[in-house]
Amino acid sequence: MSASQVELITIGDELLLGFTIDTNAAHISRALAASGIEIVRRTTVGDEAERIAQAVREALDRTGAVITTGGLGPTSDDLTKPAIARIFGRAMKLDEAIAAKLEERWRARFPNSVFPSTNRTQAEIPEGARILVNRHGTAPGIWLEDEKGRWVAMMPGVPREMRGMLAEELLPAIKARMQGVVSVVLSGTLRTTGIAESAIAELLGPSFLGDPQSELGSLPLAYLPGVAGVDLRVTAKGLPPERAQKLVKEAIVKLRSRVEAYAYGEDDADLAAVVLDRCRALHLKLAVAESCTGGMLGERLTSIPGSSDVFLGGVIAYHNDVKKELLGVRAEDLERHGAVSEEVALQMAAGARDRTGAQIGVSVTGIAGPGGGTPQKPVGLVWIAVHGSDAKARRFHVPGDRAEIRQRAAQAALEMVRRTLAKG
Amino acid sequence: MSASQVELITIGDELLLGFTIDTNAAHISRALAASGIEIVRRTTVGDEAERIAQAVREALDRTGAVITTGGLGPTSDDLTKPAIARIFGRAMKLDEAIAAKLEERWRARFPNSVFPSTNRTQAEIPEGARILVNRHGTAPGIWLEDEKGRWVAMMPGVPREMRGMLAEELLPAIKARMQGVVSVVLSGTLRTTGIAESAIAELLGPSFLGDPQSELGSLPLAYLPGVAGVDLRVTAKGLPPERAQKLVKEAIVKLRSRVEAYAYGEDDADLAAVVLDRCRALHLKLAVAESCTGGMLGERLTSIPGSSDVFLGGVIAYHNDVKKELLGVRAEDLERHGAVSEEVALQMAAGARDRTGAQIGVSVTGIAGPGGGTPQKPVGLVWIAVHGSDAKARRFHVPGDRAEIRQRAAQAALEMVRRTLAKG
Repeated sequence: MSASQVELITIGDELLLGFTIDTNAAHISRALAASGIEIVRRTTVGDEAERIAQAVREALDRTGAVITTGGLGPTSDDLTKPAIARIFGRAMKLDEAIAAKLEERWRARFPNSVFPSTNRTQAEIPEGARILVNRHGTAPGIWLEDEKGRWVAMMPGVPREMRGMLAEELLPAIKARMQGVVSVVLSGTLRTTGIAESAIAELLGPSFLGDPQSELGSLPLAYLPGVAGVDLRVTAKGLPPERAQKLVKEAIVKLRSRVEAYAYGEDDADLAAVVLDRCRALHLKLAVAESCTGGMLGERLTSIPGSSDVFLGGVIAYHNDVKKELLGVRAEDLERHGAVSEEVALQMAAGARDRTGAQIGVSVTGIAGPGGGTPQKPVGLVWIAVHGSDAKARRFHVPGDRAEIRQRAAQAALEMVRRTLAKG
Repeated sequence: MSASQVELITIGDELLLGFTIDTNAAHISRALAASGIEIVRRTTVGDEAERIAQAVREALDRTGAVITTGGLGPTSDDLTKPAIARIFGRAMKLDEAIAAKLEERWRARFPNSVFPSTNRTQAEIPEGARILVNRHGTAPGIWLEDEKGRWVAMMPGVPREMRGMLAEELLPAIKARMQGVVSVVLSGTLRTTGIAESAIAELLGPSFLGDPQSELGSLPLAYLPGVAGVDLRVTAKGLPPERAQKLVKEAIVKLRSRVEAYAYGEDDADLAAVVLDRCRALHLKLAVAESCTGGMLGERLTSIPGSSDVFLGGVIAYHNDVKKELLGVRAEDLERHGAVSEEVALQMAAGARDRTGAQIGVSVTGIAGPGGGTPQKPVGLVWIAVHGSDAKARRFHVPGDRAEIRQRAAQAALEMVRRTLAKG
């Protein structure tokens, strides 16, 4: 049992039935790991008092430090507090201040009906509990501790409420118990795109495979392929903070030296932000012309705050008439080469640039499927063009379903702009 | 211990550290629930043999039926099989066919290096195990069972491989063990937008609150608010399939009768698809003009396969010059009223319609933040206009951060088109 090890129990039928994806769990894990606190096990149970109690009892026996989320909400779900209070042998006691607040809220919603007694249970608190204040909702959090120092912290399941309470109340409380951080879990990520996992493995060679003799100072290396590309992640566990930082930094430098041309950033870097920064530094304005991505490229660029000083806009040219009318694509080229062709991609990029007054135009035209493919032009075929001081187009064959093809195409278009600007 | 109750154990440091969100767990839960199999507990542990074994032992004692995902991958993670084999008292045995396949794959990637003996462990299978074929990757799944009929099924953690194996191998194996389905978990969802959770509660009234006397035949009702609106979900648990279907259907009809104007679909319905279907039925073409959403509205419409017969495209008018040049917004109106105004929204919608040849143009202009707000025009202010046979614009004040404001604005724009067309 270590001071910096915790178990997490997430409660809710919605989670267990798979209707809700458990993003709370990932958020709590990351927030705790950053403070040197390790989640050693995570358990999810439904809204049933006996199952909640059993899971908490087991976790207390194993680890002695337990965080729960969920089951503090409306009456029918409100099982967590009494179930856990019984484990600690505590009675439930009505907190008048909380009850008054709940009743006030009810009356505002249903002025003509009586406040149901079942709803008052939300204001019941185990005796001897410490309240974790909820500044973002009604249900308070609760910290219960026994004479051996074993504790359970209960938080609501609503993500906004949980996140606020974790940062403002729970993390400070856990940190205050720790006798100085002895070790942390620290990760570093190098983000690559335009190269397959197997090709990266070849560039790195077998000496990077994460055994104790590895070039990464024994840090394990994970390949994380996704639609944005392949992320390479190294993780240091159980080391003092400074040693972990040094090892992770050195490992990322080593990885970058092998895959330099494909690496666009580290950790949470977004390629759209990288492209905008590069344009900004070069005082260039950017515009888009999108067919198969249908606005996704513009959406990615404008998702970055402050994009308006670089990104002017562009045209969603889904129908061929729009390619002609709004981008000036020649009818005979559409006729002769088809909408998914080098010629049309180049004219779309030029049109986006010239009609918006930008210095760089980038276009995407492709076949996202599931229909519309032919043997000559199969689903996944994408032409991307960038028109700056000179023009170039590139053909891609992109794997995946409709959503993946569109996401990979948008990412490839951003990467093509990045490489164009990297060359100056 | 019931024939239709299973525990799920997901394995991986990446999950426990919160780097990866556990989408496998939700997928498996939904797939099993649809077959009448209930996941009663979910556990996540890291890549450590003893922790994996402990979690599996406990789950076997509680439920006797366990599915694991992860830990079947590359050598350093390959802890699951031997850890679980030991619980069953089985030795590991090399499967020559699997070993040959792995070696072949290695040689293709690293022609000049020796196949490491550590990699051969991936081809080791517990004695007496049944292989679950992996048609989408290299690591096979494994089914182990003891003389009491307690079983563990191990699947890989890569989502694509896991999903294939679940559908093709594991689900049929579990179903074959069940003595006819006695009860299922069944849910129905009514999707609403443009109305707050509290306003829905008021429309429904207190008799819908999910107690045994509720109007929903005792099915619990969950409010699931999100950027697309508020979903209302009823769930029937532990009932025979036909009875569950009937109750869920009746509950949805009852809910719909109360919130009719705001309900755009059921279950996984996407408002973009609803809008496209409505346009298609009326033989109308649609175009967009987007400022603060930057392409998101077009992206949502084109995410639907077959959208090209309705959606023509449009203009991402992020900069005011693009609003003027490509949509014909009058300079004096931009000057006098600002880009986020009724006048500009109306002219943008008209421009999108006229310049693409569509019958309906829809526009969005707003302040997504975090910067750019003023006391008169705060962050979250959005004007949306729809220009069909007649024109109308509406002002919204949308809550949330930049991403949420944009998502809510795009959804509100689609809803405004839906309501315009609903009126005929």
